[in-house]
Amino acid sequence: MCHIDTKERFILQQISITENPNKKDKPNDNALQFGKTFTDHMFIMDYDKEIGWHDARVVPYQPLAMDPASMVFHYGQTVFEGLKAYRTDRGDVQLFRPTENIARLNRSNARMCIPEIDADTALKGIQTLVDIDRDWVPHLEGTSLYIRPFVIATEAYLGVAPASKYAFMVILSPVGAYYDAGINPVKIAVENEYIRAVKGGTGEAKTAGNYAGSMAAQEKVAALGYAQVLWLDGHEKKYIEEVGSMNIFFKINGKVITPHLSGSILPGVTRKSVIQLLNDWGIAVEERPIALTEVLEASRKGELEEAFGAGTAAVISPIGELFADGESYIINNHKTGDLSKRVYETLTGIQYGRIEDPHQWIVRV
Amino acid sequence: MCHIDTKERFILQQISITENPNKKDKPNDNALQFGKTFTDHMFIMDYDKEIGWHDARVVPYQPLAMDPASMVFHYGQTVFEGLKAYRTDRGDVQLFRPTENIARLNRSNARMCIPEIDADTALKGIQTLVDIDRDWVPHLEGTSLYIRPFVIATEAYLGVAPASKYAFMVILSPVGAYYDAGINPVKIAVENEYIRAVKGGTGEAKTAGNYAGSMAAQEKVAALGYAQVLWLDGHEKKYIEEVGSMNIFFKINGKVITPHLSGSILPGVTRKSVIQLLNDWGIAVEERPIALTEVLEASRKGELEEAFGAGTAAVISPIGELFADGESYIINNHKTGDLSKRVYETLTGIQYGRIEDPHQWIVRV
Repeated sequence: MCHIDTKERFILQQISITENPNKKDKPNDNALQFGKTFTDHMFIMDYDKEIGWHDARVVPYQPLAMDPASMVFHYGQTVFEGLKAYRTDRGDVQLFRPTENIARLNRSNARMCIPEIDADTALKGIQTLVDIDRDWVPHLEGTSLYIRPFVIATEAYLGVAPASKYAFMVILSPVGAYYDAGINPVKIAVENEYIRAVKGGTGEAKTAGNYAGSMAAQEKVAALGYAQVLWLDGHEKKYIEEVGSMNIFFKINGKVITPHLSGSILPGVTRKSVIQLLNDWGIAVEERPIALTEVLEASRKGELEEAFGAGTAAVISPIGELFADGESYIINNHKTGDLSKRVYETLTGIQYGRIEDPHQWIVRV
Repeated sequence: MCHIDTKERFILQQISITENPNKKDKPNDNALQFGKTFTDHMFIMDYDKEIGWHDARVVPYQPLAMDPASMVFHYGQTVFEGLKAYRTDRGDVQLFRPTENIARLNRSNARMCIPEIDADTALKGIQTLVDIDRDWVPHLEGTSLYIRPFVIATEAYLGVAPASKYAFMVILSPVGAYYDAGINPVKIAVENEYIRAVKGGTGEAKTAGNYAGSMAAQEKVAALGYAQVLWLDGHEKKYIEEVGSMNIFFKINGKVITPHLSGSILPGVTRKSVIQLLNDWGIAVEERPIALTEVLEASRKGELEEAFGAGTAAVISPIGELFADGESYIINNHKTGDLSKRVYETLTGIQYGRIEDPHQWIVRV
């Protein structure tokens, strides 16, 4: 890890607010597209090596004036997070485990040599921003307000070294239900040519380069009719790592297994929540290396009962078909399994305030 | 590779010119820092999925108005190049192998799902820009005008998919001699924890994520007094790949060897030029996997005669000491070897027009 000294690291910043006098028209809840519409305000805080993080503020959503030599364009020092604000039936607005996202943001920062951000300031920034744009949280079943915190290196310098200036920002986008017609299994394909990440690389960090590198594989499987890539490890191309940009779970012969956090896998907040829920229900989850051959063998023996991806966008994405080594493996007859469904309904139930929150995962805005 | 359809792909674009009415003061040739000062103009050309690359123009150097949701900030689709313009003793300004950089830019584009750029337009853009800022090419021995072409994804969208909008830009920075006191050997250290790249990843492409990922290792060895990281392969951590952001050459027992382009190594223009020069001189270069143990063993037997990095910034960077597995290996008594020196003087001789250019590597501006 790459610890950068930050001045005033643990001081909660005051957040100034400049209200947007020109409010936009909000899109209809029925016509929301993921990540294309943004709200009236954004949060921004600057970092300078001499004075640390400073000038935390909520301002009208607006373009950034970026020097063409800004280091983020050239050497890619950037990290991000994704979480959501949910509207409950009572009209409250609430966040799901935001401190987990902030903690991961700081772990990503450490890997990418970006100065750590005071967690309390980050949470207060998110809450203040969501509060001022509270009317943008959509009402329709399954909709939410997607929250995108991110850091970019803003120094104008072409040397390969950690930047001396950064901006931490939060932007908001109202998003529709992930599944048009309810939760629905997808087809995925094993990727044998491209590698998402390798231990010692940046796979554990939520940083832009991981996503840029994944696009060629995603385009390749999409052209063949598959929704997502099943990524194998970068060393041996033997062990299963992630599916698309989600963590993955399998139910084999009554047992639930998920790849352990090997150093190249993103430690998902949804992943962690799924494991907790299953434990709550008395279902042990094995976190360990899972060879692709083990899964294929289980499928051949009729023991692969369910498989699903877990991530913030879709929450739970059941896998109905797996293509590997020239063969298609059908899972649970292309239907959503009982366990996948139970996990999905419980997680979304907690997120939308419909069921009890036994672990204090919810933070009110 | 990820081929993106580009309209008008092979049509040479007209380049419009808007001159900067407010010329900056130029820095003194003696006080140039790498990549901190930029010239009066920049080149820019936009891409839109509907109309292809368009609106090629030279305009005053200025900040870009970037939407905070611009995809480059989040998913890192960006590639870049680095080359230089040199002032000859006669006052001419010339480029070194620019078509090689443009060809590599397009190979990087293909890996990163960025639409290909017409090579003639890119070359004309660079030439037009360098010409208008010709007075910025410094005069002092060893100085040059660094040229940075780059592409960034500009679409405002938070979906993980190739963007539909990009900007291709070129900016210029006058840079000093890389070595204050002439060519001088550096100390490097083997990296065993971090990985720069792995076959199937993005190591062959000149894209931001590779550099962002390398910083933690660079900071780590710098803290121990070493100038650069010696990167090993990501699969077995056994084979030598690159040094810092340069390719590497060894002279062992009279033979020159360099790692072959394995899929995770950047195909350097300087690397290619060094191999050509050595061939011209009747010195065969072995391009093959080189285990670290082979180099250490050669050093112990007194057969490791020279080692040097090769890249655009330093041209040739001799290695005087290699730290590996807790031991220091001194190379050529910390002195620049004869072959390293000959390669350096020949390459820079061609670049500055002091000696004949037998391979038509030089392109006049």
